[in-house]
Amino acid sequence: MPGTVQSIERAAAILRMLAGGPGRLGLSEIARSLDLAKGTTHGILRTLQGVGFVEQDRVSGQYQLGAALLHLGTSYLDINELRSRSINWADPLAARSGEAVRIGTVYEGQVLVVHHVFRPDDTFQTLDVGALLPLHATALGKVLLAYRAGIFDSDLASYTRKTLVTPRELVTALEQVRECGWAADVEEFTLGEAAVAAPIRGYGGLVIGAIGISGQVERICDSHYQPRPHLVTSVRDAARAISRDLGAARP
Amino acid sequence: MPGTVQSIERAAAILRMLAGGPGRLGLSEIARSLDLAKGTTHGILRTLQGVGFVEQDRVSGQYQLGAALLHLGTSYLDINELRSRSINWADPLAARSGEAVRIGTVYEGQVLVVHHVFRPDDTFQTLDVGALLPLHATALGKVLLAYRAGIFDSDLASYTRKTLVTPRELVTALEQVRECGWAADVEEFTLGEAAVAAPIRGYGGLVIGAIGISGQVERICDSHYQPRPHLVTSVRDAARAISRDLGAARP
Repeated sequence: MPGTVQSIERAAAILRMLAGGPGRLGLSEIARSLDLAKGTTHGILRTLQGVGFVEQDRVSGQYQLGAALLHLGTSYLDINELRSRSINWADPLAARSGEAVRIGTVYEGQVLVVHHVFRPDDTFQTLDVGALLPLHATALGKVLLAYRAGIFDSDLASYTRKTLVTPRELVTALEQVRECGWAADVEEFTLGEAAVAAPIRGYGGLVIGAIGISGQVERICDSHYQPRPHLVTSVRDAARAISRDLGAARP
Repeated sequence: MPGTVQSIERAAAILRMLAGGPGRLGLSEIARSLDLAKGTTHGILRTLQGVGFVEQDRVSGQYQLGAALLHLGTSYLDINELRSRSINWADPLAARSGEAVRIGTVYEGQVLVVHHVFRPDDTFQTLDVGALLPLHATALGKVLLAYRAGIFDSDLASYTRKTLVTPRELVTALEQVRECGWAADVEEFTLGEAAVAAPIRGYGGLVIGAIGISGQVERICDSHYQPRPHLVTSVRDAARAISRDLGAARP
């Protein structure tokens, strides 16, 4: 990209490497992976350490992500309009449906979960905020794909036997999503689990996110493995309410 | 700092400004605040946009934090050893005490919350992970301060009438923390709330974090506003168990 600053791109590449790898890396490994001189790499790492974006392990001398990133990530959530406008609608949707609610947006060819309301019962659940989910195998992802032409990879990973793994199957499914205005995933990502999602539209009607419920397939679907109509209606109502708050034109 | 990369420091300063401010800022505001030429600032912003660290609002053209930071922040949590070693002890502590549990570490003169287990009841609670709390006014913070000499500011903000606002009061309180091995805050940060915390020691015995419970003052304290001994014991036991897992020498 012309007019960009190379050292910042290198710094970002190091942070991504640390986020994607085993957690800690040594100077030599980082320099080798980026094809940079050790001195250059060390200068970038020292700077990142100075601003709190990386930390150096006292014992091993290896580098890992720093606490400043957690604070920046939380600040991203605080100012994220999709999330802030959705929160008031996500809680009632969880209460009405009795299921977990998640809100996602597209990030690097995956679904980034920006909000998660636990299923309203006392079972142990893990917070998914910040997690990445596959676009083609989740209801949230299929909604996001349906309104953005041609961004899916032709190499579609299989998670269960029901995952859509051919571009042809996926294209057909996405057409249906656009026709119906909502998407489902029935054991396509996790066995025993199903999900329903609908698009959230921002200013001007552009789809900027998706909201959905997910839970045990027996609760989400009827005996024919079809999502229960009242759940679909609840999800779509919530999506429309959020879109209205975000300034999308009324349909 | 010698040997650091100026453009990375400038990029970090922009991200902090976006995290600390009203959410969105224009090019001119950012350039002015950093005392940089508009062209230089624009180059940095374009690069940050290219790597997903900032996003540009389509309508206003203003800049805000980007989704990549949420993912990096979550990755920081995933690989954070303090957090990963603490999780298994935080849930039982919440169950045993009936109160919310938080784990914190020092970040830029404040307590950064890296883990939060909700109070085990059905009330509405907000996740505090990523939040920053004052060191001098919270049990977690006083534990962290007690084992790191002289890092508190002489300008101690008052949150309630019980907040310790003079260095002398605070120094005395921190001596007591070191003597007893735990800290309390009874309505020093929030009226009606009390907390108890104990130090988490890492490799070599260094204090690297704190774990604590917090809740309604009537539940945490007895009729003399003293933390209930069984709660103090539960918190200290959890802190010791985590320290052992982290490789601290046994006392």
